[in-house]
Amino acid sequence: MEKIKVGIVNVTGYAGIELARLLVRHPAARLVSVTGRSSAGQKLADVFPHMTGAADLIIESELSDVDFAFVAMPHKESALEVMKLIERGIKVVDISADFRLSNPEDYNEWYGFTHPSPELLDKAVYGLPELYRKDIESANLVANPGCYPTAAILAMAPAVKQGIISEDIIIDSKSGLSGAGRTLTTVSHYSEANENTAAYALKGHRHLPEIVQELTYLNGETVNVTFVPHIVPMTRGILSTCYAALREEFVEKEDIQVEINAIYKEFYKDAPFVKVVDNPPHTKNVWGSNMCHIYPFVDTRTGRLIVISCIDNLVKGAAGQAIQNMNIMSGFAETAGLEAPPIYP
Amino acid sequence: MEKIKVGIVNVTGYAGIELARLLVRHPAARLVSVTGRSSAGQKLADVFPHMTGAADLIIESELSDVDFAFVAMPHKESALEVMKLIERGIKVVDISADFRLSNPEDYNEWYGFTHPSPELLDKAVYGLPELYRKDIESANLVANPGCYPTAAILAMAPAVKQGIISEDIIIDSKSGLSGAGRTLTTVSHYSEANENTAAYALKGHRHLPEIVQELTYLNGETVNVTFVPHIVPMTRGILSTCYAALREEFVEKEDIQVEINAIYKEFYKDAPFVKVVDNPPHTKNVWGSNMCHIYPFVDTRTGRLIVISCIDNLVKGAAGQAIQNMNIMSGFAETAGLEAPPIYP
Amino acid sequence: MEKIKVGIVNVTGYAGIELARLLVRHPAARLVSVTGRSSAGQKLADVFPHMTGAADLIIESELSDVDFAFVAMPHKESALEVMKLIERGIKVVDISADFRLSNPEDYNEWYGFTHPSPELLDKAVYGLPELYRKDIESANLVANPGCYPTAAILAMAPAVKQGIISEDIIIDSKSGLSGAGRTLTTVSHYSEANENTAAYALKGHRHLPEIVQELTYLNGETVNVTFVPHIVPMTRGILSTCYAALREEFVEKEDIQVEINAIYKEFYKDAPFVKVVDNPPHTKNVWGSNMCHIYPFVDTRTGRLIVISCIDNLVKGAAGQAIQNMNIMSGFAETAGLEAPPIYP
Amino acid sequence: MEKIKVGIVNVTGYAGIELARLLVRHPAARLVSVTGRSSAGQKLADVFPHMTGAADLIIESELSDVDFAFVAMPHKESALEVMKLIERGIKVVDISADFRLSNPEDYNEWYGFTHPSPELLDKAVYGLPELYRKDIESANLVANPGCYPTAAILAMAPAVKQGIISEDIIIDSKSGLSGAGRTLTTVSHYSEANENTAAYALKGHRHLPEIVQELTYLNGETVNVTFVPHIVPMTRGILSTCYAALREEFVEKEDIQVEINAIYKEFYKDAPFVKVVDNPPHTKNVWGSNMCHIYPFVDTRTGRLIVISCIDNLVKGAAGQAIQNMNIMSGFAETAGLEAPPIYP
Repeated sequence: MEKIKVGIVNVTGYAGIELARLLVRHPAARLVSVTGRSSAGQKLADVFPHMTGAADLIIESELSDVDFAFVAMPHKESALEVMKLIERGIKVVDISADFRLSNPEDYNEWYGFTHPSPELLDKAVYGLPELYRKDIESANLVANPGCYPTAAILAMAPAVKQGIISEDIIIDSKSGLSGAGRTLTTVSHYSEANENTAAYALKGHRHLPEIVQELTYLNGETVNVTFVPHIVPMTRGILSTCYAALREEFVEKEDIQVEINAIYKEFYKDAPFVKVVDNPPHTKNVWGSNMCHIYPFVDTRTGRLIVISCIDNLVKGAAGQAIQNMNIMSGFAETAGLEAPPIYP
Repeated sequence: MEKIKVGIVNVTGYAGIELARLLVRHPAARLVSVTGRSSAGQKLADVFPHMTGAADLIIESELSDVDFAFVAMPHKESALEVMKLIERGIKVVDISADFRLSNPEDYNEWYGFTHPSPELLDKAVYGLPELYRKDIESANLVANPGCYPTAAILAMAPAVKQGIISEDIIIDSKSGLSGAGRTLTTVSHYSEANENTAAYALKGHRHLPEIVQELTYLNGETVNVTFVPHIVPMTRGILSTCYAALREEFVEKEDIQVEINAIYKEFYKDAPFVKVVDNPPHTKNVWGSNMCHIYPFVDTRTGRLIVISCIDNLVKGAAGQAIQNMNIMSGFAETAGLEAPPIYP
Repeated sequence: MEKIKVGIVNVTGYAGIELARLLVRHPAARLVSVTGRSSAGQKLADVFPHMTGAADLIIESELSDVDFAFVAMPHKESALEVMKLIERGIKVVDISADFRLSNPEDYNEWYGFTHPSPELLDKAVYGLPELYRKDIESANLVANPGCYPTAAILAMAPAVKQGIISEDIIIDSKSGLSGAGRTLTTVSHYSEANENTAAYALKGHRHLPEIVQELTYLNGETVNVTFVPHIVPMTRGILSTCYAALREEFVEKEDIQVEINAIYKEFYKDAPFVKVVDNPPHTKNVWGSNMCHIYPFVDTRTGRLIVISCIDNLVKGAAGQAIQNMNIMSGFAETAGLEAPPIYP
Repeated sequence: MEKIKVGIVNVTGYAGIELARLLVRHPAARLVSVTGRSSAGQKLADVFPHMTGAADLIIESELSDVDFAFVAMPHKESALEVMKLIERGIKVVDISADFRLSNPEDYNEWYGFTHPSPELLDKAVYGLPELYRKDIESANLVANPGCYPTAAILAMAPAVKQGIISEDIIIDSKSGLSGAGRTLTTVSHYSEANENTAAYALKGHRHLPEIVQELTYLNGETVNVTFVPHIVPMTRGILSTCYAALREEFVEKEDIQVEINAIYKEFYKDAPFVKVVDNPPHTKNVWGSNMCHIYPFVDTRTGRLIVISCIDNLVKGAAGQAIQNMNIMSGFAETAGLEAPPIYP
C-alpha cells in the first residue's frame, strides 16, 4: 500500500515536533511537508537536532501537496488555516481548540473571538476515539481534544455514563511544563519552575468548557465541574485526580469497588490505549507513549469515588491522539505508529 | 540571657538535621547534644558536610544533659524516648506521631501498636501554634503536627471554625520527596521519582486521623475528609488544594470572596508565619522558611470554596514548627531563629 | 522470515528492562523469555506497569529455549551465566564488564575476582560496532561496552587513530542517575541527587581500564588517561568533554578545524548511530535513542582539541548498543529495532 | 551601632533579589532603597512574594540616600551607574563585569564597548577577599568576581601561587540554570533545560579573561587556560573540575597528596568561607550559603593535579560575595549576615 502524504502546519511548537517524531516511523503515512513561520527556509534537522528520519525536510511557509494535514497553530489562527485546507479537500486534524466547542458562542466567552466558520464547527468531530470512534471514521475534520480534557474525560466517562456519581465533580490536575508550550514565559523559566508546584487559572481555565461539554453529552445531565490545574516540575505528564460523590444506591453496595472496576474495564474493552489499573498510576509509566492509565477507587469512609488518570500530555494529550485520529479517519489500524512502549525510567 | 541547652534525638533523618541547621543560628538556644544510632561516634560535620556552626559536635548514642529536647525518632520508638526525657524533667517537642492523636485507640488502628503511655498522651499538646498557642505556653510535651496536617488544617481552620462550609472536605496534597524521609525506598530512588507524579495511600494515610481530629475540634462537628497525597518531583514543599461546598447562606452572598478573605486575615492576624495571599501560592515562595501561604478562593460557578496552602515540609511541616513550639514553651519570641526569608529561586 | 527467539537474563535492572522495551518492537527478534531473581513468578507487566507489547511474559528463574541471549547480571555473576549459555550453543551479548578487558589479570586488579574463563575471554569481541563491526559479525560472544567508555572512545577514536593528539587525554564525564542502576543507594536517593552535581571515583573508576585498553589498541601507543565521572541531576544521558593537546604539526595548520571535522566525518561515514555535529551537543537530543552526537572543537588559543560526545546511557550506553550488536551478529540490518528518533523535549 | 543604609540598583534580577534576601537579616546594614526598571512603583513583596522582612520597600527608579550601594545592572550600563554613585561619594560593589578586567582594551575585545571610565577602572579592586582582602578594606569600588571565576580561581590559586603545576590549565565547569539569569531564553526554558546537559561558549566565554588575569597575577607567569562551561539541570550551584600537570619535581614526591593538602589548608587558613575537604564535594553541601568547598586530588597514575571546587553561584558567586566585600569595606565582621548554614537536602 502506498503511504499517504502528510503535512504539519506549525511544526515548531512542542505538539508539532512531537507529531513529526511519531510520523517519521508511521507505517502508512509519510511526512512530506512542514511549515513554521520563524524557521521557514531551514532544515527541520537543523532546527531540531534530535530529528532523525526526516533529515531532508525543509521548513516551508506553506504546506505543499498533501493528503492529510495536522494544524498546530494557536487558537483563532488555526481556524483560518483549517478552513483553507478543508476547502482544498484535505482531511484535517486540528490540534488547537478552534473546533472543540460545539456552541460558537463559547468562543466569544472563553477565547475572545467570534468563530469564523460556525458551519464547519458543526461538521467537526470531537476527536476522543474512546467516545467517538464511529464519527471519527467518516469525518473530514477532527478537533483534537485538549490535554487536560483527555485525561479528565477518560477518567470520568464510565462513571458519568453509568450514572454512578452525582453531578458534582472536582478535577485536580497536575501537569508537566511542556503543557505550557515552547513559547518563553516566566512560569516556565527553569529557575522559576524547578522545585515548584502551584495551581493556576482558578478563575476559569479554557479547558473547563470542553470538559463540561463532553461530560454533559454522556448522559444528558449537566455536570457541575470544579477544575484546578497545577504545574509540577517535570517536562511531560498529566495526572488528574477526580472526585465525585457516589449516588446513594451505590454507596450502600457491598461490592461497589469490584462493580466499578468491571464497569470501567467493560467501557474501555475495545480501547487499545486505555488501561484500567489496580494501583495508583504513575505518569512515568505512560511517558512518551499514547497510553492512558486509569485507576477508579472507592473511598468507603466518605462514599466518594476517586478516579486517577494519567497520560503523556504531548502524546495522548496532543500528537499521539492526533495520529490515532488520523489512523481512524484513514482506515489504518488504530494503533499504527503508536505501538512503542513508554520509556522508563 | 544565657542560652538554654538543647538536644536532638536522632539527628540523622531529614527532620533531625534540619533542626540542627536552624538551631545553630538560634539566638536563645544552644545545640549541645545530638544522637543518631548508625552514626554514633562520628562528628556531625563529617556525616553532614554542609553543617557549619556546629563543627565540633559528636553524634552520641544518648543525649547528654540538656534543658530541652527534640525527638525525631520513628513512631512507637519515639514514645519510649519521650517518656524517659519527660521523667528526667526535660521539656520535649516530639516530631513523631506518637502524641498527636488524643484517643489512644487510634494508635492501634492507624499505627498498629498499643500506646505505652496514655496518661502522657493526655498531657501532650498538639503543636500547631496558630490554634493552640496558649496551651503550648505551659506544656512540657508538645506533639509536633505532621507535614500534611499542618498545611491542611491551616488551610481549612478559618472556614470550619466559622461554619462557612459543609462537612464534606476534599484535600488533594502534593509533596516533594524529602517528605518520604532519608530511608532508601524505591519510590524515592531518583530515576523512579524524577519526571513522575503519582498519588499514594488512598486506602488511608496516617495523617488522615490527625486532620479529622483537629478539624472536628474546631467547631465540634464531625468532618468527612477525603485526603489524597501525591508525590511530585521536587525535594521540598507541600501544596494542598482543599475543596468544600459553601453552606447555602454563603453561596448567595454577593461579596462572599471579600468576606472570606477578611475572615482568613482576621483569623491569622497574630500568626507571624501565616500569610493570606491574593494569588495562587507557589511552594517556591516558602522554600526553606517557616512560612505558610494560604489562598482562599470562591468558585462562584459551583458554589465551592477552594483553599490552597503551601509550606516547606521540613520547616513549617517539621523542624521549623518544632522550634516555633520551643520558642513558645520557653518564653522566647515566637519567631526567634526562624526569621530568614525563603530562598528564591 | 521467522523471528529469532531472544531471552534476557536479569530483566529487572534498568539495562534489562530497557532491552525488553526495545525488543518488543524488534522486526526480526521475539522476546520469549526473561529472568529476574527477586521477581520470579510474576508477570513482567505487573512488575513494570509501563510494559506494553509483552503483556503475558512471566519472569522466570531460568531462561527457556532461546536462540540469542542478553545477560545483564552484576559483574562476576555474569561470567558464570554466560559460560553456561555459550555451552548451550546460544549466542550472547553480555552487558556486564566480565568480557570487556582482554587481560584476565585486570579482573583481579579492577574487579577483585579471578576470571573464571580466560579462554572465553579470548574469544569475546568488544562490542563497539563503530570499531569492531567485522569481528562482531562472526562472534558468538560480544562484550557490550560500558556507558562511559562508549561515549569516550567514540569521541577520541578518530583523533587517536589519526595521531592528531598527544597521548595525554582528559575525559570529564557527566552522567544521569540511571547510570547508577536500580539498586537503592544514598547517592541516588532523590533528595540527595536532586539539585546536586558531584564528581566521584577519582581514585579509579572501573571504566578507566576499558577506555585505556581501547584507545591504546587504536594506534598501538599507550595513552595516559585521566577520567573523572560526575553525576548530574537527570535520569538519562552522558555528556563527555574530552581534552588533549594537538600535536605540534597540527597546531600550526590554518584549517585545522575543517580538517578535523573531515577526519571525524570520514571515520564515522558508515556508522548509522554516530552524528558529527556542528554545535555543542545536548544530551536531550539523543534521549531515548541509540544516537551518539560528537562535536570536535579546536581551541586555537591553547592548541587543544576538545571533543564533546553524548549518548543515552541506557540505549547507546547499554541496551541499544546490545541490540545493535545482536543485529550485526545475526545478519539483520544494523539499525533494526533502533530507528525511533530521540524524544524531545 | 547604627546600621549603614544600603541600596540595590536593579533588584529584580536573581543577583539583585538574592542581595535583598541576605541584607534583610544583616546585623549592621539596613536595606533602605531598591531600584528596578520594569517594576518601579510596585512593592518589593508584591513582585517577589517570598520576601519577608522588607515588606514595605517600594521599587524605585532611582536610589534614594544611601551609604553603600550594590549595582546589579547588565554590563556597560552598570559602569554608568557606578560612576554616578562614586561621584556622590557612595561606596559601591559592582556585580557586573564592568570593573573586573584591569586592561580597558579587554572591554573592547570581550564585551564590545569602550570603557567609559578607565581611571575608575584603575581604582577598582577585584573583589575576591581570599586574594585581596587588604586592598578591599580601603577600596571605594569593588568589582565583584564572576561566578565561574570565583570557583575556578579559588580552586587553582594555591597551586599556581606555589608553582606546583605547569601553566596549562583546563577548567571544566558545570553550572545550574540560575547562572543564566532571570531573562527568558530558550536554553533556560524548563522543558529544554530539564533532563539536559550541554557545554556552551567554547569559542570564548566572557569569564575566561577574568580567570586568566587573576591566575596570571598570582605568580607572574602567563597561564594557558581552556575553560568549558556546561549547564546542568539544577537551579543553583557551580562545580568546577580543574586539571593541570604537576611540575616534574612534584610528581616524584612520595607524599605529594599530603603536601598539597597542607598547602591548600595553609593558603585558606584565614578564609572563613573556604573549606578544604577530604572527599569530592557536592554542590548541595554549599547550597544557599557563601561557602566554597575545595578538593585537591593528585592523580598519581598520570601525574596530574585535579582540583574540584563548588559554590552556590548566586551566593559566593554573586550576592554573598558582594556582602562579604561590603563587610570588609565597612569594617564589619567578614561573615556578618552570611552565617546561615547551607540548606540540605
